[in-house]
Amino acid sequence: MSGVDHRVTEGASLVAGVDVGGTKVAALVVDTDGATLGRAERPMTVRSGAAGIEPIVGAVRAALDAAGAAGTDLAAIGVGVPGRVDPETGVVGLATNLGWRDVPLARLLEAEFGVICAVENDVHLAAAGLVGHEAAGGARSLAYVAVGTGIGAGLVLDGRLHRGGRGMAGEIGHIVVEPAGVVCRCGQRGCLETVASGPAVARRAAEEVAAGTDTSLRDAQPLNAKAVYDAARAGDPLALRLVDAAGGALARAIAGLVLTCDVERVLLGGGVAGGGDVFLQPILAELERLRSNSALLSELLPLGTVRLLAAHFDAVAWGGVALALRARGSARESPPGPRTGTRPAAVVEEVVAREPLT
Amino acid sequence: MSGVDHRVTEGASLVAGVDVGGTKVAALVVDTDGATLGRAERPMTVRSGAAGIEPIVGAVRAALDAAGAAGTDLAAIGVGVPGRVDPETGVVGLATNLGWRDVPLARLLEAEFGVICAVENDVHLAAAGLVGHEAAGGARSLAYVAVGTGIGAGLVLDGRLHRGGRGMAGEIGHIVVEPAGVVCRCGQRGCLETVASGPAVARRAAEEVAAGTDTSLRDAQPLNAKAVYDAARAGDPLALRLVDAAGGALARAIAGLVLTCDVERVLLGGGVAGGGDVFLQPILAELERLRSNSALLSELLPLGTVRLLAAHFDAVAWGGVALALRARGSARESPPGPRTGTRPAAVVEEVVAREPLT
Repeated sequence: MSGVDHRVTEGASLVAGVDVGGTKVAALVVDTDGATLGRAERPMTVRSGAAGIEPIVGAVRAALDAAGAAGTDLAAIGVGVPGRVDPETGVVGLATNLGWRDVPLARLLEAEFGVICAVENDVHLAAAGLVGHEAAGGARSLAYVAVGTGIGAGLVLDGRLHRGGRGMAGEIGHIVVEPAGVVCRCGQRGCLETVASGPAVARRAAEEVAAGTDTSLRDAQPLNAKAVYDAARAGDPLALRLVDAAGGALARAIAGLVLTCDVERVLLGGGVAGGGDVFLQPILAELERLRSNSALLSELLPLGTVRLLAAHFDAVAWGGVALALRARGSARESPPGPRTGTRPAAVVEEVVAREPLT
Repeated sequence: MSGVDHRVTEGASLVAGVDVGGTKVAALVVDTDGATLGRAERPMTVRSGAAGIEPIVGAVRAALDAAGAAGTDLAAIGVGVPGRVDPETGVVGLATNLGWRDVPLARLLEAEFGVICAVENDVHLAAAGLVGHEAAGGARSLAYVAVGTGIGAGLVLDGRLHRGGRGMAGEIGHIVVEPAGVVCRCGQRGCLETVASGPAVARRAAEEVAAGTDTSLRDAQPLNAKAVYDAARAGDPLALRLVDAAGGALARAIAGLVLTCDVERVLLGGGVAGGGDVFLQPILAELERLRSNSALLSELLPLGTVRLLAAHFDAVAWGGVALALRARGSARESPPGPRTGTRPAAVVEEVVAREPLT
């Protein structure tokens, strides 16, 4: 482990939460009352080895600058990474979109900043950070569903983050929704991701354009998911059909998730969810149809269960803040001197931020 | 609450586990080393009010007789009921197949036997009781999937029973698997239960017989699921087709459950699972097909993940035993005198029997 002598002083009263994405890093600097003092982004360009952390370091330092704070004000860092993470060691085992394998991220950042750093899978982290947030409405069991390049869920069950036996809980993007559909990157046919992810919506639009369907999307450059959601908002019939199909499949997957786990709240985020109302409405319409047919689903999915997080709310970075607050508390309780063990158990086992922070 | 002065003495060294089913009650009497000393069944005939507990009382007394023991040897009782249970009060809110609504089962049995009684939903109870059992192979996250008149799952996640926000986790029988299928009792079309439950398999067979399909099932009296599984075992082509369809749908639902919750072990029980190999093989065949297509499922569903519990193993009654052992421990730790509160928190919050008992 790192062997860094972690400075935890009364003077260090800020924490940083970081969302490491495939294309950019976002960092928040927050005080212990949960007030956001600074935010910054950096392109995620360097992608391998220890140098891969430079954009993370840059984003955290820029967020500290934006907060008018110095590195010595920082008490802890919480980071979400799109991949497999060992939360006890802070090692990223595999993050395909970053090109990372076995990167000791916590140790590298601890060496850089001299404070405790906790690392978690990004979707799991976002779910954990939503407990106690006003968006969760007091739910003790909730799912965060990220819809973007892929589709995945983070689960908080009975107030605890549920990672799963192999840290892979929430892989709902690979539940088959169209048995005769196209082959998914996972190898199966017709996974939810092949219908409702950003690339899937864009691919379907491109296929229709190539087949000569009359649509405003013929002129879209680039023809990506954002273009399709924009065209749907403007009333383009093809785009509406595609976003309806995506929303319907998402709604049925959410119903399956609620039937399986009995979560009380489902919060939608991720890049495609940034489509806003035109993304959300087909989901709510299909849920209403399901509810109207089934007393069971009426009970398990009452109106208001499924909500879209505000587009400006970075759920992963916020989860990082909550994790950092917990890590800071653990570090304070640790005996002084070099910390040579693993992440504190409290950091990896318990959910953070039970009280509303915003 | 009951106000009964619970006798917990060194002399009372046995516990009873009870499976209350729609047609019969099964009771086990077990010593604190987990050795089964007696077993008994009673038909579940009387179905309403306080008299509804008579078959339960009869089964427990008969199991005590079979164990050569007396009521004074009993220290605690754990009961599984097919319906909604408040595990803190031991009240059965609704058990449709028993015709029960708001039955204070724990209080009634405590008054009868003078020992602490804990009550839990049957499928949840079975899952909890499997933690630490050799069938679970050490898994800390597992699902018990009951296939019978209905289909439901009990989930133990990270070593804790997960009931869900409303106590309704595991309703996988109502995940839609055939969108254009028949209407389910829940109101939706094409739920898993409409394909793979006992009544569904029997109904499909009856429809084929009525349509003139050449099958040995034309002579089956009664034409129930057991007849179909028996005919499949004898090689009847129609029966094989029906059990393949049921097994395929179950396998896909199990894959969805594993993708969502990342459980390490799935244990199959319930009346239809009593069909044995002819029930299990189509499930394993479809899982093998899914695995062969997907690295993700290969990892999450390695060979041996899905297992059939032995037909003679009553998972619900065994879960009752484990719950009773925990309740007995809690009662011992309670202050002496009349116990007037709710079930001990330890009984309802923690999973029991971490060590293999058989």
